[in-house]
Amino acid sequence: MSAYEKLKESINSKRTYLCVGLDTDISKMPEGFEKSVRGMIDFNRFIVEATSNLASAYKINFAFYERYGVEGYSAIKQTLDFIPKDIFTIADAKRGDIGNTSQAYADSAFDYFGADSITVSPYMGSDSLQPFFEREDKLVFVLALTSNKGSFDYQRLIAGGKELYKVVLEKTSEDYQFDQIGYVVGATHPEELSEIRSLLPNHALLIPGVGAQGGDISAILKANNNAVASINVSRAILYPSGEGNFRDNIINAAEFYSKSLNI
Amino acid sequence: MSAYEKLKESINSKRTYLCVGLDTDISKMPEGFEKSVRGMIDFNRFIVEATSNLASAYKINFAFYERYGVEGYSAIKQTLDFIPKDIFTIADAKRGDIGNTSQAYADSAFDYFGADSITVSPYMGSDSLQPFFEREDKLVFVLALTSNKGSFDYQRLIAGGKELYKVVLEKTSEDYQFDQIGYVVGATHPEELSEIRSLLPNHALLIPGVGAQGGDISAILKANNNAVASINVSRAILYPSGEGNFRDNIINAAEFYSKSLNI
Repeated sequence: MSAYEKLKESINSKRTYLCVGLDTDISKMPEGFEKSVRGMIDFNRFIVEATSNLASAYKINFAFYERYGVEGYSAIKQTLDFIPKDIFTIADAKRGDIGNTSQAYADSAFDYFGADSITVSPYMGSDSLQPFFEREDKLVFVLALTSNKGSFDYQRLIAGGKELYKVVLEKTSEDYQFDQIGYVVGATHPEELSEIRSLLPNHALLIPGVGAQGGDISAILKANNNAVASINVSRAILYPSGEGNFRDNIINAAEFYSKSLNI
Repeated sequence: MSAYEKLKESINSKRTYLCVGLDTDISKMPEGFEKSVRGMIDFNRFIVEATSNLASAYKINFAFYERYGVEGYSAIKQTLDFIPKDIFTIADAKRGDIGNTSQAYADSAFDYFGADSITVSPYMGSDSLQPFFEREDKLVFVLALTSNKGSFDYQRLIAGGKELYKVVLEKTSEDYQFDQIGYVVGATHPEELSEIRSLLPNHALLIPGVGAQGGDISAILKANNNAVASINVSRAILYPSGEGNFRDNIINAAEFYSKSLNI
C-alpha cells in the first residue's frame, strides 16, 4: 500500500483529518515528566497513547529533538517506533539540497526513521526534489504556501504572471503522480487553499496552523472540500490550558480537534 | 571574536579560501577504512589531519551522516570536535521553518554542535530566518543562487522586476549586519557572483561547486575580488582519482585546491 493510500485509509477509519504534531518542548511539558530527553519520550508515549484513536496522522518536528543532539535524534526514532503502524507519519524536516545530498536525506527519513512522508523545501529546484520521489511508496510534501507571516515575503511574489507558490505547485504537480506529491498549505490562508483544492482535487495536503497559529477550522474544512488532507495541531493539544489535570486537558483538547476536524 | 572575524582570520592565516567539504560517503571511502560509521569518523579524522594546514574552513554536510541515524548524528559531533578550534566550521544543513522551530534548529547547530555557521533556506521568509540571527557571534549563510541546475527553476524567476535570488539578497542584507549574514552562491555562476560581489563587497560568501561540480576556479577568484569567501571542494579532495596510494592522492588534491584558491 502506498503512503497516499495509507493516509486515505487512516483518515477514513479514524473519521478525522487530525494530525497531532509532536513539537515536544521540555520547558512546556506538564509536571510529572522529567525535564530531559527521556521525559520527552515518556511524554510522547503518553500523547500517542492518549490520542491514537483520535488522530489519523502524527507529524514529528525534527528541530525540537535535534536541539538535544544525539539523544534527541534517538528520541525521534523511538517515538516513530511506538506510533501504531496503521497511522500515517510525517517527518517534518523541511529538507532539500543538491541531488546526492537530497538522496541521503531521503534515506534518513524513509529508511532509517521509516516515516511515511517528509516535508521538503523547493527553493533549490527540481533536481533537489527528485531523489525524494524515487521511493514510490512514500509521499513528499513540498512547501507551497506556509502558515507563517513570512509566507508573504517570497512565496506570494509575482513571478512570470503568477505567485511563486503557484509556479511551484504547477511545475511539481506536472512532474510527479498525484499520489507521490503533496503540498504544505497553511491553515491561515483558507481562500488560497480553496483555489489550490480546485486545481489539485486529489493531492494530499498537509495543513498546519490550526490551534496556536489561529487557522479557522470551518473555513479550512470547507476549502478542503472533503479531499485527502492532514490538518495539524501541535501546541493546542500538547499544552492545553485548563484547570483540570493535564491528562484530562490533553484528551479533551485532542477530542475537540478530532471531532472539529471530522470527515 | 565573531564567526565572521574567525573566518577572515582563518583565510588570512592559511592564505586560502579553501573549505573542505566533509560529504563522507561510505561507498566511496578508500580501502583500509571500515565500511561503517566508525570508519567514516576515522576517515574524517584522517582528512582533517591531512588538510588542516591547507584549508581555512570545513563544511560538514549533515545529510551524509543523518542517513545513518543516531550513529551518524554522533559522527557529526565527533568530527566537529576534532576540527582545530581556529578553523571556521559550517553546519551545512539547509534548515528553515516557522519561528519556534527555526529557534530549535539554531540551538542544534550552534549550541549542541558548536558550529560557527549554518546554511539556511529562505523560502519561508523573514520570520523563519530571524531566530538564526539571534546569536550575534555566529554567521548564517542564506541560500541565494545555488550551484545546481535547479537554480534555474525558481531562483532566477523574475519577481517584481528582478530575479528572486536578488530579492532575497536585497531584503535580507537590509535586515542584518554584514558580519552576521552571508550567502550561498554556486561556483557555477561566475558572472552573477561578480555582480553580487559588487553589491555586497564585504559579506561572507559560501561558494560550493568547485571540483566535481565543475565551477571554474580562476573565474570565481576574479569574481570574488579578494573578499571574504569560503570556496568549497568536497568530492575532488575526498575521493581523488590517481594511481598512487590514497593518502598521497588526497594530500595532493588538497594542496592543489589550497594553492589554486590562494588569497
